[in-house]
Amino acid sequence: MTTLKNDRFLRALLREPVDTTPIWVMRQAGRYLPEYRATRARAGSFMDLCKSPELACEVTLQPLERFALDAAILFSDILTVPDAMGLGLYFEEGEGPRFQQAIRSAADIDRLGVPDPEGELKYVMDAVRVIRRELAGRVPLIGFSGSPWTLATYMVEGGSSKEFAHIKGMLYDEPALLHKLLGVIADSVTQYLNAQIAAGAQAAMIFDTWGGALAPEAYREFSLAYMGRVVDGLTREAEGRRVPVILFTKGGGQWLEEMAATGCDALGLDWTTNIGDARRRVGDRVALQGNLDPAVLYARPERIRDQVAKVLADYGQGSGHVFNLGHGIHQHIDPDHVTALVDAVHELGRPYHA
Amino acid sequence: MTTLKNDRFLRALLREPVDTTPIWVMRQAGRYLPEYRATRARAGSFMDLCKSPELACEVTLQPLERFALDAAILFSDILTVPDAMGLGLYFEEGEGPRFQQAIRSAADIDRLGVPDPEGELKYVMDAVRVIRRELAGRVPLIGFSGSPWTLATYMVEGGSSKEFAHIKGMLYDEPALLHKLLGVIADSVTQYLNAQIAAGAQAAMIFDTWGGALAPEAYREFSLAYMGRVVDGLTREAEGRRVPVILFTKGGGQWLEEMAATGCDALGLDWTTNIGDARRRVGDRVALQGNLDPAVLYARPERIRDQVAKVLADYGQGSGHVFNLGHGIHQHIDPDHVTALVDAVHELGRPYHA
Repeated sequence: MTTLKNDRFLRALLREPVDTTPIWVMRQAGRYLPEYRATRARAGSFMDLCKSPELACEVTLQPLERFALDAAILFSDILTVPDAMGLGLYFEEGEGPRFQQAIRSAADIDRLGVPDPEGELKYVMDAVRVIRRELAGRVPLIGFSGSPWTLATYMVEGGSSKEFAHIKGMLYDEPALLHKLLGVIADSVTQYLNAQIAAGAQAAMIFDTWGGALAPEAYREFSLAYMGRVVDGLTREAEGRRVPVILFTKGGGQWLEEMAATGCDALGLDWTTNIGDARRRVGDRVALQGNLDPAVLYARPERIRDQVAKVLADYGQGSGHVFNLGHGIHQHIDPDHVTALVDAVHELGRPYHA
Repeated sequence: MTTLKNDRFLRALLREPVDTTPIWVMRQAGRYLPEYRATRARAGSFMDLCKSPELACEVTLQPLERFALDAAILFSDILTVPDAMGLGLYFEEGEGPRFQQAIRSAADIDRLGVPDPEGELKYVMDAVRVIRRELAGRVPLIGFSGSPWTLATYMVEGGSSKEFAHIKGMLYDEPALLHKLLGVIADSVTQYLNAQIAAGAQAAMIFDTWGGALAPEAYREFSLAYMGRVVDGLTREAEGRRVPVILFTKGGGQWLEEMAATGCDALGLDWTTNIGDARRRVGDRVALQGNLDPAVLYARPERIRDQVAKVLADYGQGSGHVFNLGHGIHQHIDPDHVTALVDAVHELGRPYHA
């Protein structure tokens, strides 16, 4: 494997010295980029794009051509795992993801197997291999998965949900059933991420998009516990380096101490928590990734710069901060505003590492 | 005015002794009740229902006929105030609220006036008067308004939003403009709530549905400050009793101490904060209202009872707790489950007030 030319991102996640604060952007390969929209149009459906290793590689690299980002993230969807379990993922325009089969009963759960990452999910591992080859050591590649709880919400609801009626009904009425489902998903996610690491992913991120919809005790028992189980099962070293793991629960600002205790290397933060307060709370147990409000990018470049300065100052002196948005970039953002963001972070971040 | 037969709700908000924990349910007059759906069908549109004092009274009282609730809440919409400002509120089926005019510029803001509560909004005050008469002192009546920030989100976006692109663009790009808008709304909300109190509302609640979408500093400056201004301007005594004020920021669990410092009497809590932790944080400054996950009501009655017991135990001994859901009741809930909830609160709450 090629030597890494820029390892700021990996070093910051391990709280090792860096020259300036690294940055990447959640959903950096996405619809706000005209070149993404062009590839997407050529690919056909969104899943066709995910399932072609060459096209997935193409869109993964697009934002790196435009912006001085410090990491690439595998282009894929969080629902590849339930799709590979046979649930039949499809997308309806403007409707979000749906599954042909929803999981509602013990019999439904009994039929689920752990998918083979080099079988049904081989297209993902092929994408990781192609991207690593094409990156040629420019920056590290992040692999990712949805959290077991987040994947379970889609599987039980049969798609996106606002109220989580079915899965929360199961949680409160039949907790043993939900635990059984989450166990199968946790095993699948562990194997899936380990296969990504074996294929070349240099860090792993677990997206718990819907953990914040839970009451604190339910979060602990049905989301955090299974993320902890995944973390415990992950390969933590590859190519002679540590493979850092980032946990991100959107809306999880109240639970950072407990998240930090899972053994992960870093926490993703949404923008509703002050990153300085978060740092005081987690101490030197983990690095922090975040947490600019994605809506700041609607403002003009000077204002973006002011807000970047604020987040950097809130985090303060020293390593352990990977700059990012607090959630995925919105689709109507002007790409030039992302240039302003990335350049501001690198420039204004420098004094914090002197 | 008639003497109150059941004042548990008002006493709990002021942390005065009660015989058991009072309960009401956010959106208790709503689509989960067949009798509500029947009145709504008779009324025509949702706004026709809001604008008829007699029909608004009818649906306000419906849940009190079924359940032993300790408070009634005025049936209305949070968008009556911007509608009265001339923005032209309408509802598209399955689409949420929309405005014919969105507020985007200084000129748009200059055109806005503070609506006369006994003029354009007289239908709301008439509803309060009719409901008070028909309640005949059974339980107290809660008046309410959206928070200035929450109303501003609809006015600037022109309706519901997920990403708040326009208003956050204004917040980061033109903060002085947004402050001007929020000032006009805060004055309107203050007059609106004071008129409800003059018409007979015995408590007031401010719903900050979208404050939780803000970064902490932005929350403080653009939502909390204006709720504080409203609280400062409210009539706090009527009919020889204190009129308690409840602030509720959905997703505001990280900011309870600051909310408690506004001078309000109570905080509404969503279900993502443990109510015992919240009580330890706010001490004896305010009462707490909440905070069962609304999705618990999908479970069977025995499980609902277990979860009620947990919330009561988390809050612990003594007054200062008004039981409620952490957000509005979902539309597909079985009304019999609400009976189980209300009865469980009254029965299991008793030992905490011995």
